Amino acid sequence: MNKLFVIKIGGNVLDDEAVLTMFLKDFVAIQAPKILIHGGGGIAAKIGDRLGIESKYVKGRRITDAATLDVVTMVYGGLLNKQLVARLQELGCNAMGFTGADGNLIKATKRPVGETDFGFVGDVTTESVNSTLLVFLLKQGIIPIFAPLTHSNGTLLNTNADTIASVLAASLSMHFDVRLIYCFEKKGVLKDVKDENSVITLLDKKLYEKFLTEGSFHDGILPKLENAFTAIQSGVKEILIGDAKDLSKNLGPETAGTLIKN
Amino acid sequence: MNKLFVIKIGGNVLDDEAVLTMFLKDFVAIQAPKILIHGGGGIAAKIGDRLGIESKYVKGRRITDAATLDVVTMVYGGLLNKQLVARLQELGCNAMGFTGADGNLIKATKRPVGETDFGFVGDVTTESVNSTLLVFLLKQGIIPIFAPLTHSNGTLLNTNADTIASVLAASLSMHFDVRLIYCFEKKGVLKDVKDENSVITLLDKKLYEKFLTEGSFHDGILPKLENAFTAIQSGVKEILIGDAKDLSKNLGPETAGTLIKN
Repeated sequence: MNKLFVIKIGGNVLDDEAVLTMFLKDFVAIQAPKILIHGGGGIAAKIGDRLGIESKYVKGRRITDAATLDVVTMVYGGLLNKQLVARLQELGCNAMGFTGADGNLIKATKRPVGETDFGFVGDVTTESVNSTLLVFLLKQGIIPIFAPLTHSNGTLLNTNADTIASVLAASLSMHFDVRLIYCFEKKGVLKDVKDENSVITLLDKKLYEKFLTEGSFHDGILPKLENAFTAIQSGVKEILIGDAKDLSKNLGPETAGTLIKN
Repeated sequence: MNKLFVIKIGGNVLDDEAVLTMFLKDFVAIQAPKILIHGGGGIAAKIGDRLGIESKYVKGRRITDAATLDVVTMVYGGLLNKQLVARLQELGCNAMGFTGADGNLIKATKRPVGETDFGFVGDVTTESVNSTLLVFLLKQGIIPIFAPLTHSNGTLLNTNADTIASVLAASLSMHFDVRLIYCFEKKGVLKDVKDENSVITLLDKKLYEKFLTEGSFHDGILPKLENAFTAIQSGVKEILIGDAKDLSKNLGPETAGTLIKN
């Protein structure tokens, strides 16, 4: 099978012009089919503030009300996504920007109201992805750039970018040898969160469960690891968690971050 | 050749929920390949106001400075475009939203600074359109929905939606029998702008030039007519100017608006 890179960048990359410029250059240089998923970054909160829309939280978790949905649709689906596409085009990469609504590429389920009503939030699984159309676009040399938005019943929904990356990687693993790369601000998954040099270079299910039991992981990395192992269970061959600045070092058999395998 | 409908809606349709709902239903019902181009509407100005960004004009013509470009990228490329796509998907239409940057579908030239610097405004011709990719997407049953944005040199550019509709129609007329439909708030091109029943049902180049010389046309319709006759010269078979509410009446040989032919 052909190789496919599914790469996720978060707000820390989008908010740092020097890192973003370097990342885009490295992304364009990848000589294989590839998909980019981007998160939000500080700009959505800034625009929300300027529009007088307050971020609402319940038990520390953000709620997407109708006004917030409009802000993220504008900022993620419009500003950030289209700016990335225009810049990648300039670098010779045939980027095409998408939300999950476009071509019905990712259809979500609006999160059911339980104890908390999260509002316009979409939950997704591997089955949410229109992989037939994605494979078809990739074969045409199109490079899909995803904003963290999905859809259901005629409305857009806010969806976690890490999770979108995970389900895209999983659904495409039937057609490609997928390496899913989570780019963030650290060198990888750290044994000691205070020590940047304590990168766990290789992590398998057994070691993951051992570290989990021991409570070794920093809280912030847990959702990423959960998404990673869900993807592995769904057939993704390799997952790499590393620094956006190290993208070029994380494309081959030798890697600089944390490589996760079954 | 197969028939293709290229349909443009302006702000008046987007700003009127009842008209928009009816329009989308009629659009979805069209049993032929089709492309939608949407303009802006009042929401862009409202969001700009709330963000404290003033609209700048020179000699009555709007200037797109960097802050305004961000607003239109958010509102046209994000909010309006993605909401239309999500609603069309719900109606069973496989819509996919684009700016000209996506897939390099419409590459523009930034308007040269003459007496006036219009800022981030893109000028386009028939040659600006990546018709190969568009034909390919249409053949896959994808319905392209265009925001009035193009790109050049890594940046997005604000481009008139009527003009985008015209160049898309022209570039695709090599592959399809194109009917370009401009939907607006009047029944068609009027002989007497105060009389809604004075629709000119058929307009050809000769009659157009006669009316031009006589100064019969209302100022507001002139740019639309210019775009229309440019498209006709570039091979578009038929252009229809009519009311968005009359879309369903403007798809066959009998029409309710102004039909323009060579």
